[in-house]
Amino acid sequence: MQEAISLALKGSFNVHPNPKVGCILVKNNEIIGKGYHKEYGGHHAEVNAFKYCIKKYGKAKATKLLFGSTAYVTLEPCSIFSKTPPCTSSLIKYGIKNVFCASLDPNKKINGNGVKILKENGINVEVGLLEKKAISINHDFFFRHKKGRPFIRMKIAQSLDAKIALSNGESKWITSKKSRDDVQQIRLACDAILVGSGTILKDNPRLDVRKNIRNLNERQPKKIVLGSSFLKRQNDIKILKGTAEVIVFSKEFSSYAKEGNLIQIPIKKSTTLQDTLKELGKHELNSILVEGGSKIFTSFIQEDLVDELILYISPKILGKESIDSISIEPPIILSGAKKFKIYDSMLVGDDIKIIMRKKNKYK
Amino acid sequence: MQEAISLALKGSFNVHPNPKVGCILVKNNEIIGKGYHKEYGGHHAEVNAFKYCIKKYGKAKATKLLFGSTAYVTLEPCSIFSKTPPCTSSLIKYGIKNVFCASLDPNKKINGNGVKILKENGINVEVGLLEKKAISINHDFFFRHKKGRPFIRMKIAQSLDAKIALSNGESKWITSKKSRDDVQQIRLACDAILVGSGTILKDNPRLDVRKNIRNLNERQPKKIVLGSSFLKRQNDIKILKGTAEVIVFSKEFSSYAKEGNLIQIPIKKSTTLQDTLKELGKHELNSILVEGGSKIFTSFIQEDLVDELILYISPKILGKESIDSISIEPPIILSGAKKFKIYDSMLVGDDIKIIMRKKNKYK
Repeated sequence: MQEAISLALKGSFNVHPNPKVGCILVKNNEIIGKGYHKEYGGHHAEVNAFKYCIKKYGKAKATKLLFGSTAYVTLEPCSIFSKTPPCTSSLIKYGIKNVFCASLDPNKKINGNGVKILKENGINVEVGLLEKKAISINHDFFFRHKKGRPFIRMKIAQSLDAKIALSNGESKWITSKKSRDDVQQIRLACDAILVGSGTILKDNPRLDVRKNIRNLNERQPKKIVLGSSFLKRQNDIKILKGTAEVIVFSKEFSSYAKEGNLIQIPIKKSTTLQDTLKELGKHELNSILVEGGSKIFTSFIQEDLVDELILYISPKILGKESIDSISIEPPIILSGAKKFKIYDSMLVGDDIKIIMRKKNKYK
Repeated sequence: MQEAISLALKGSFNVHPNPKVGCILVKNNEIIGKGYHKEYGGHHAEVNAFKYCIKKYGKAKATKLLFGSTAYVTLEPCSIFSKTPPCTSSLIKYGIKNVFCASLDPNKKINGNGVKILKENGINVEVGLLEKKAISINHDFFFRHKKGRPFIRMKIAQSLDAKIALSNGESKWITSKKSRDDVQQIRLACDAILVGSGTILKDNPRLDVRKNIRNLNERQPKKIVLGSSFLKRQNDIKILKGTAEVIVFSKEFSSYAKEGNLIQIPIKKSTTLQDTLKELGKHELNSILVEGGSKIFTSFIQEDLVDELILYISPKILGKESIDSISIEPPIILSGAKKFKIYDSMLVGDDIKIIMRKKNKYK
């Protein structure tokens, strides 16, 4: 199973929003097949393991070997048709005798059904081998299925006095180049980047992962914008020029929007941030990186919707008229203040990076 | 000399404002005497080394042994009468042949004179053995003599949004107990603690080092207060009840002040913070720990008078009406922002501690 987990990790960021899955096939104490889920839409790990076996031994011998063999899979085999046929069918077809899965699939459409189907077909199934580890490699995927919304990472680059820009908007750059490079790595690991419309108008960022950071085929994270005011200036807007989908939540439908990769989702006056995130969960986004600006940071913190807070603190002081990173309503007493738990911290370039999680963190 | 430096360190915090000094006496490759400066007002290292020798060998044999011996001293022997007679005289009297000192004494009254007197009396003197190390153990002492003012450490305990208290003044406690214990260690290493009059009125702190932290005989740091408004309430004021001297800088002389350990230093309207620090340098304070409040933090930062900034950041958010830690005038452009250099950082309890120094740091 350890080998299957290592294989799963090869899938890296290409499988989003699918989980990373690995599969090892064993017969007479020898590995006869191995595979992992390589990219979204492609074959699942089990199917790749069968293909490996057939390629290595030829169809006739492989068929013989596979019959009565044991499969180690990091996640419950799927029981549904999605982009590919259900893996349970393949396992049954090849006459696999034993299936060890590290954990059940949290997806409600599967969750236990895969195991049930296998058992009904006379296969011995055991669930739970290295379960914790297997879950941890797909943390955000499990989170989304359990909570019905994406895992929210929030990244703030601020000064010692907790400012993110001068009053004239200048914010390039508060933190050092190494910190900004580090953010690129975080972007790569998230399904989408969320900002407010004001940030688009003010900074007109690309919100992309630079070419030198990602591998050639790795997809760019989607962009999510709360508010549509920036669409009036769509000819200049850099996020609309990229290849990644841009999802805009807005009270008004903008007729300006004509770009192919733009999705507008109308919201009502009563729509909460929580509602918006649930909607994004339905769009199969496992994780979102919230990148600004001040109003967005404040709303997410105010509503306790930040699961992980990544703070880069630059040892500078921006002064009193500069823009606060977070500006929530104060607690009545100190013990009522919103709290995080520091999880890790490190020097990055000239700055310090602090990773925090919610106190009542996801288990 | 390494041995002499190790000895010097035994003097720890009891020698303030004197430097820590160690001395080793060698004859025929054997150590015949060793001593260190134990406490302010007591014998200097050289004299203690002679005493050690006499105690060990008896007066007659010691006199014989000392004649023609070599002394290793971590600091230039003093040439002036202060609390004790000059050490140069003792070295001459006992007929020491060679003196190695790690560094010159930065005190302008000595600085090279000790060496000169020894040389004039036929003693071979060499300066510079392990100089850097010897200077580093008395960093603040050297700083004061070179710059004419104490080394300024500033400690701030703040939230993620850089607040030090709620708007109602509640600040107990933003950081965890381990962080507050850690501050006790910093207090112990400083000659004085400085706060604003407002902090005394608001929090009425002791500003003491707790008994369990310091050794029985270690002195409490002096207290310095900028402003005298708190003296109107002197019956309640805790810092006036302690044993340590309280130095108050104020534009008005307060007739309320009758306590024995209170010193009032009048200042003019034109007196700058820099002037005040020079005055404290004359009071032989090598280092000052600035502990609050917001106005004091702001003034020191605004005037570039913070040599070391120690920040404890608690992973809490205090919100918008709460009190800012530092509130200086903003720079016109971002590259003009005041900067520190991160020197070290660590987790302390639930918080993170960041130690920063001025970019143009003392060499």
